[in-house]
Amino acid sequence: MGLRLGPTTVQFASPPNILSSASVAGKTEKDGAYGLSFDLTFDDDLWGEKTYELAERKMFQKAVETAIERASLKPNDISYLYGGDLLNQIISSGFAARELGIPFFGLYGACSTMAESLILGAMAVDGGFAQYAVCGTSSHFATAERQFRYPLELGTPKTPTSQNTVTGAGAVLLTSLRGQYPAVTHATTGRVIDMGINDVNNMGAAMAPAATETILSHLEETQRNPEYYDAIITGDLGTFGSELLIKLANDAGKNLSAVHKDCGAMIYEGNPLAKCGGSGCGCGASMLGGFFLNEMRGGRLNKILFVATGALHSPTSTLQGETIPSIAHAAAIEMGCGQ
Amino acid sequence: MGLRLGPTTVQFASPPNILSSASVAGKTEKDGAYGLSFDLTFDDDLWGEKTYELAERKMFQKAVETAIERASLKPNDISYLYGGDLLNQIISSGFAARELGIPFFGLYGACSTMAESLILGAMAVDGGFAQYAVCGTSSHFATAERQFRYPLELGTPKTPTSQNTVTGAGAVLLTSLRGQYPAVTHATTGRVIDMGINDVNNMGAAMAPAATETILSHLEETQRNPEYYDAIITGDLGTFGSELLIKLANDAGKNLSAVHKDCGAMIYEGNPLAKCGGSGCGCGASMLGGFFLNEMRGGRLNKILFVATGALHSPTSTLQGETIPSIAHAAAIEMGCGQ
Repeated sequence: MGLRLGPTTVQFASPPNILSSASVAGKTEKDGAYGLSFDLTFDDDLWGEKTYELAERKMFQKAVETAIERASLKPNDISYLYGGDLLNQIISSGFAARELGIPFFGLYGACSTMAESLILGAMAVDGGFAQYAVCGTSSHFATAERQFRYPLELGTPKTPTSQNTVTGAGAVLLTSLRGQYPAVTHATTGRVIDMGINDVNNMGAAMAPAATETILSHLEETQRNPEYYDAIITGDLGTFGSELLIKLANDAGKNLSAVHKDCGAMIYEGNPLAKCGGSGCGCGASMLGGFFLNEMRGGRLNKILFVATGALHSPTSTLQGETIPSIAHAAAIEMGCGQ
Repeated sequence: MGLRLGPTTVQFASPPNILSSASVAGKTEKDGAYGLSFDLTFDDDLWGEKTYELAERKMFQKAVETAIERASLKPNDISYLYGGDLLNQIISSGFAARELGIPFFGLYGACSTMAESLILGAMAVDGGFAQYAVCGTSSHFATAERQFRYPLELGTPKTPTSQNTVTGAGAVLLTSLRGQYPAVTHATTGRVIDMGINDVNNMGAAMAPAATETILSHLEETQRNPEYYDAIITGDLGTFGSELLIKLANDAGKNLSAVHKDCGAMIYEGNPLAKCGGSGCGCGASMLGGFFLNEMRGGRLNKILFVATGALHSPTSTLQGETIPSIAHAAAIEMGCGQ
């Protein structure tokens, strides 16, 4: 059962536990600073498939299957699959759901999808609708480039504020069973924010205001300070978007600099080709499903706020002169709350 | 709180009431047999806007706003907006959500989105996460044609099995407040089904197996016969898909012919230009938000099962030689259960 704390935040009465998780990543991500934290990796862009789209679908499916196997469960034990991705008509998730055979809720939250799926899954589990629910998302550099920007074959140079879509996927398996696991304790659902940015090579700037609003609402409604959390983790603001988040939060009287981490800045740490860092739903999802949840299980992190941000534009809306609306959802994940 | 009846169906402990609803439609729909049941209609494809996409966004927004106004509420009284549409990156819903300012869950279930949003909204309300949640979706003939098939300017002729995307939108406002309203009592969430259809001009055939599976699962898990319902209403199978549904259900020993209605077959009744009838998320949404819920409020229908079906392909997946995976979600709506 939910307890409403304010206009955007609810608290879970019996925080759903994260029984298991999984992460999948491509070669650039594997070669990065967090390469060892991914469960499955592959060395080309196709992973043995004929198209990039098939490779992305495989990543989504493998992430979900791995999370389910790790919990010693089978797909037909799972009540619901919550998933989405960046591709038109979310074909990665939809086609993977066909193979998995789990009742499926298709989502589109752009790069906010991992947090969106976690929130909806946690509501179903805490509401008594599911004993097990799996939440996942994926992105792929090559499928995203040709859909949102230019075909790779054009060789278009990158602008300094651009980010690199992460080839990666992540999945999280939630349960109503009690035990010593990371548990989803609170959910803050974002509003769509638009500060007038219209540069599709500057997603960080478009999404930072949404992240700021969601984090500030979360802190206010839960009456917590930033330091309550060991880490406030944004999905893919990148280095430029992260600076903007820190500044906007500072202007509102909250200093996030000591606890803020950004998966997009981390995943390509030290790789200048990635410009401002990683982006895409798979960025936050693979870092959460791998590194961050491993850190929690290992006792090195106890309380995190996972904030995934999404840019809700399309190539059509951009061509029609629209700015980039953005959204951020946040899920608090804490140890010791799911017993 | 949810009570799980089987692998796909849950029962709501305190069935969320439909406090109000609204429907919007274009000219062809207004001129049809159910024209008077739509709350707002317009006479060209643009509704005073510069692009078809802007007209669709306006339909989505007006449907949601009208449902909220009818309940004498304001957007900031609403905890969550659940919405999606057929356009890439669901720009109709996403941009409308920016104007509405309600915490937003973006969905993609193709034409199944109205039932998907109802289920997720009802779970949030019954789970204690929201006092009010609004669920909506839209589609537009001109935006869908140029995205999924051919630009209108090409003048491509229609095949006999083709359907006409409905220009329409619908919204439903759910509440935990008790009273004499239509109430969402059960939700059956679909799996992705694929019978190998690859003709994008034969959506009815692609979606009928998904509708059949979801309806049969629902009846089995609730231990109800088809006649329990005054109407089992599919969203947009059209005439050909409806025949197929009746046949497939008959083969499985269930006779749906006395109670089955299809919004796609109804909305263009008697209009030969529409071939097999209407399709699109806005088809089921505008008929539910208008005609069917009006019939319930007027006492002419007491128990309905609303089943929306979606085809989860994309132009890319079709060009890459994939078949059309489909999904159907069902929500039971009954009078006298929300007191």
